[in-house]
Amino acid sequence: VRPDSTMPTPTRILLSRSAAPLVERIAALCPEAELHFEDELKERPELLGEIEIVFGGLTPEQVTAAPRLRWMQSMGAGVERLLTPEVRAHPFVLTNARGIHAETITEHMFGMLLMHCRRLAGAWDLQQQRRWEPERFRSRLDLLAGKTLGLLGLGAIGSHSARVGRGFGMRPIGLRRRPEPHPDVEQVYGPDEALEFFAECDVVMNSVPLTERTRHLMDRKAFAALKPGAIVINTGRGATIHTEALMEALRRGQMGAALLDVTDPEPLPPDHPLWVMENVYITPHYSGWRPDYVEHTGKIFLTNLRRYREGAPLMNVVDKDEGY
Amino acid sequence: VRPDSTMPTPTRILLSRSAAPLVERIAALCPEAELHFEDELKERPELLGEIEIVFGGLTPEQVTAAPRLRWMQSMGAGVERLLTPEVRAHPFVLTNARGIHAETITEHMFGMLLMHCRRLAGAWDLQQQRRWEPERFRSRLDLLAGKTLGLLGLGAIGSHSARVGRGFGMRPIGLRRRPEPHPDVEQVYGPDEALEFFAECDVVMNSVPLTERTRHLMDRKAFAALKPGAIVINTGRGATIHTEALMEALRRGQMGAALLDVTDPEPLPPDHPLWVMENVYITPHYSGWRPDYVEHTGKIFLTNLRRYREGAPLMNVVDKDEGY
Repeated sequence: VRPDSTMPTPTRILLSRSAAPLVERIAALCPEAELHFEDELKERPELLGEIEIVFGGLTPEQVTAAPRLRWMQSMGAGVERLLTPEVRAHPFVLTNARGIHAETITEHMFGMLLMHCRRLAGAWDLQQQRRWEPERFRSRLDLLAGKTLGLLGLGAIGSHSARVGRGFGMRPIGLRRRPEPHPDVEQVYGPDEALEFFAECDVVMNSVPLTERTRHLMDRKAFAALKPGAIVINTGRGATIHTEALMEALRRGQMGAALLDVTDPEPLPPDHPLWVMENVYITPHYSGWRPDYVEHTGKIFLTNLRRYREGAPLMNVVDKDEGY
Repeated sequence: VRPDSTMPTPTRILLSRSAAPLVERIAALCPEAELHFEDELKERPELLGEIEIVFGGLTPEQVTAAPRLRWMQSMGAGVERLLTPEVRAHPFVLTNARGIHAETITEHMFGMLLMHCRRLAGAWDLQQQRRWEPERFRSRLDLLAGKTLGLLGLGAIGSHSARVGRGFGMRPIGLRRRPEPHPDVEQVYGPDEALEFFAECDVVMNSVPLTERTRHLMDRKAFAALKPGAIVINTGRGATIHTEALMEALRRGQMGAALLDVTDPEPLPPDHPLWVMENVYITPHYSGWRPDYVEHTGKIFLTNLRRYREGAPLMNVVDKDEGY
């Protein structure tokens, strides 16, 4: 037993199965801790009552059944499904993986955008038919350079996307809660100016978390205000867009395209009309994934584990009332 | 008859049919000129003998049958098919449309690259089957950030691509004839260092013109030197790559992918193996097209027409011996 009196002993840590590659590093940092994997809960549900730290995802019911939980590090960034009133009332500290998705999600958004503008899905269809028919595409191409790129949120993802957009010769503007000037965009709009913002956008990149404030942030009013022909990209959470309003805007030809990595509902059921609408491209919620994902979330967890032991403030703490 | 003695009268200008929207502006600039469209040659082939200026594409045979031709503005950038020994011996001035393709081709190259790295073609296939299956993609994604981006040529296209690549967090390097330092890349390699260059590249973007020097620039030696897993993109001319050597490198798994807007032969015949090889994506030679293409080439032609009348040097003159 270590003589460190600040350290509750033994510390029980519950790990997601995907965190297995990190076990040695966790044990080296916290040699006295007992490590458990989530799978054990199936045979020993009472284990939950003794868990102090979690790296992975518990359900809201599991959190409320874990009275000794002091800190949970989630594997992803979005935590909206976890934050029931009971979970918000529980005094544990919640940290997330925000920040590691900026490059991945930005690349995914520009990939979808360019795939649409350069008609690459149509070219892929023709390739499978072994047909060389350039004239099908020439009149239907679009160019990023010169377009206005509207960013919903200017966190790590929005800022990186703004810089990439500027590299392509786009004019980046942003909509955010606190409309202070931001070095990566030419203009920042506040919540009261949302409709003016949407009227300026040729492309909207939406990667905001789902909170009470952002639910249906893009509603009928927003789509009505949108610049005609605008392309809307969503990699945040499906419910930040009102799906019916989106489909209406597509049907009346006001929008150029909807490029969706997230949908509402999700998973999108096979009979949902979005699957087959023209100028709609769907990827099944993997824009945040990268080859070394667990390594990256693991670094945040290990940093926080060291801080936790030292009694230092954790990084990436979620404001459970704000929801992100 | 205008009294301007420097002006041969009447000036006969032959126009591509696609230049029709420019006729008024051409006439305003050159009111004494007789304008003809290419179609007229079918009924009056002897017209060719009187043409002084061409905006569009003549065949090598037509050029040699046009003894009074003094200047031809081509609609595109690549002129390798025109430059037979007879055409090179003809004293007319050849200008091309280089410079207007930088944004378009850069966007096309990054579109193809991101479509591959983010597995968007696979997602498009699944969308058509209305299947939401993220787990198919998660282990197969790739990230641009941190990769080395090798640019063949550092003209308008290579420089713009280098800047965009840097925005994505890539490390741009370049290979060019004259290996002076260049502000948009971290290192410039000369022709003698081609194999060292290829060994550094995670991604090769090739948009060089086809000349005697660049034919089969990427041959068996280049592919053998290439960094394992590298992605090769070609939007220049198919024959700058040795197609058999490319297919061998793909078959032995040395390359990550080949993203081709141009091929050799071109058009690619339906029974060519490239169509169906794994990790090969083909677009049928339209990477240089943009919505306002004729407007952009037209601006170059009108600028040059004004200069021609003033006896001033033309822009975008092609060195017929160098081939670009």
